[in-house]
Amino acid sequence: MMDRKIVGVIGGGEASPEILRMAEETGRLIAENGFLLICGGMGGVMEVSARGAKEAGGITVGILPSPDRHSANPYIDISIATSFGEARNLIIVRTADLLIAVGGEYGTLSEIAFALKMEKPVIGLHTWDVPGVIKAGSPAEAMEIAGEFLASP
Amino acid sequence: MMDRKIVGVIGGGEASPEILRMAEETGRLIAENGFLLICGGMGGVMEVSARGAKEAGGITVGILPSPDRHSANPYIDISIATSFGEARNLIIVRTADLLIAVGGEYGTLSEIAFALKMEKPVIGLHTWDVPGVIKAGSPAEAMEIAGEFLASP
Amino acid sequence: MMDRKIVGVIGGGEASPEILRMAEETGRLIAENGFLLICGGMGGVMEVSARGAKEAGGITVGILPSPDRHSANPYIDISIATSFGEARNLIIVRTADLLIAVGGEYGTLSEIAFALKMEKPVIGLHTWDVPGVIKAGSPAEAMEIAGEFLASP
Amino acid sequence: MMDRKIVGVIGGGEASPEILRMAEETGRLIAENGFLLICGGMGGVMEVSARGAKEAGGITVGILPSPDRHSANPYIDISIATSFGEARNLIIVRTADLLIAVGGEYGTLSEIAFALKMEKPVIGLHTWDVPGVIKAGSPAEAMEIAGEFLASP
Repeated sequence: MMDRKIVGVIGGGEASPEILRMAEETGRLIAENGFLLICGGMGGVMEVSARGAKEAGGITVGILPSPDRHSANPYIDISIATSFGEARNLIIVRTADLLIAVGGEYGTLSEIAFALKMEKPVIGLHTWDVPGVIKAGSPAEAMEIAGEFLASP
Repeated sequence: MMDRKIVGVIGGGEASPEILRMAEETGRLIAENGFLLICGGMGGVMEVSARGAKEAGGITVGILPSPDRHSANPYIDISIATSFGEARNLIIVRTADLLIAVGGEYGTLSEIAFALKMEKPVIGLHTWDVPGVIKAGSPAEAMEIAGEFLASP
Repeated sequence: MMDRKIVGVIGGGEASPEILRMAEETGRLIAENGFLLICGGMGGVMEVSARGAKEAGGITVGILPSPDRHSANPYIDISIATSFGEARNLIIVRTADLLIAVGGEYGTLSEIAFALKMEKPVIGLHTWDVPGVIKAGSPAEAMEIAGEFLASP
Repeated sequence: MMDRKIVGVIGGGEASPEILRMAEETGRLIAENGFLLICGGMGGVMEVSARGAKEAGGITVGILPSPDRHSANPYIDISIATSFGEARNLIIVRTADLLIAVGGEYGTLSEIAFALKMEKPVIGLHTWDVPGVIKAGSPAEAMEIAGEFLASP
């Protein structure tokens, strides 16, 4: 498990059906490619991406804002209870080798900005247009780009 | 001291001379208007805005990323050592009643996004163009807008 | 303000009348000796020590667990809203030059242990008996010991 | 994986051979009993307990103080990079269902105190004598006690 690259999926707790479909597909592809998925462990994009990963036999980690690890969505394998509120976003970014942002509101923008500051690759699917974000048109394209980054030793 | 409104100044540790001039002027106006200034306590925009505030007789608070409170710039009255790294940005945003962003790179964008998520007013001076940020053309204009927000009881 | 040494007062949100009297006297002496008082900003020992300091004309800083700086007790001058829950205790310890523990339950024990790990002096008034804590029999004695530590340049 | 109870092992980065033997045996027993092991991810007690768990086919999670997940010891399956320094201890305590303290210095005492405040069961093996800690004479006895707590639904 240790040698697996880790992909963070960031996005809102609420999202449109189209965004949710993309997030689930992204999660599925992360697992199919042998990567571990890390996210915020709550609802919306976090939940459906974890569900996609689990359906493909992957492993999911959720970094929760709350002190109760049982507040994670049901598709999280390893649920980490931080009690640090929004500051838990920084743990997701620090731990991931690469981030995929799917849709998202201000919270997602904050994670994108932080990830770019940390010089982590950020791939964007229908998300904020920030210089440095690599835009992808579909989950498949996002995963192709991610694969190139993560293939390097 | 307790009843003073608190204005957060956010911006890069490195900045152009023009940005630094605006940040210093912003700090001076914050103090002249009787507000307390909070910032990240380090160099660049953080240092010159604190200097401006001190020159106008104001009070400055610095929330440091490091565990050593003596690492603050010399214009900080109350230096808080967090050892939480970048997560200290969230403390600045939580504590401030209103934020003024001056210039800035990805770190500043992350604070802007977080402040908007927290529904704090954010005034921007030559900074990221994010929906929700109130653009000002000069420190004087920024302070005029800030004064209107902070005058409300 | 910047050159003032900072004394942290740690103790429970609830405490016996005797402990509260000692905490208030400790706060008063901290201010009379020209030190800045930092504490957790909430009730009990935190509140009465801040009240003692304010009655003696001192300056008080409260590091709050919650995201709302207005949740501080009324004797806090500078109220810092962290939203980090109990982890805010580490900020108090990091920022203080010396800690005085007054009474206290498990939370206080956790701060004492962390302060000793950080090699900060810890003076104890009717608190946990941990090797490394310097026991004092009264607030006056605690302040005498503190004065010796903080007099060193 | 999700339904597994989580046992936190806390102890020093440096420890005597006897303490290290007990920590490794504790890790082995945690895995043999089907629990997931969480620890601080670094050396000493953290490393040998994780090694013990891996030798018995278990799963290990490390919550690191640093921003680099590759700084974990080699027996950590899921390595979480926090960059929050010592505050990461609180994440271990929040996430674990039960803690076993093995030996330990001030850092361990701080975790014990915090766990007791959070009302988590704490079992102690040659560690601080704090009221509320359940003393065990051996890893086997510690695991027997842990098993009783964790068997409850």
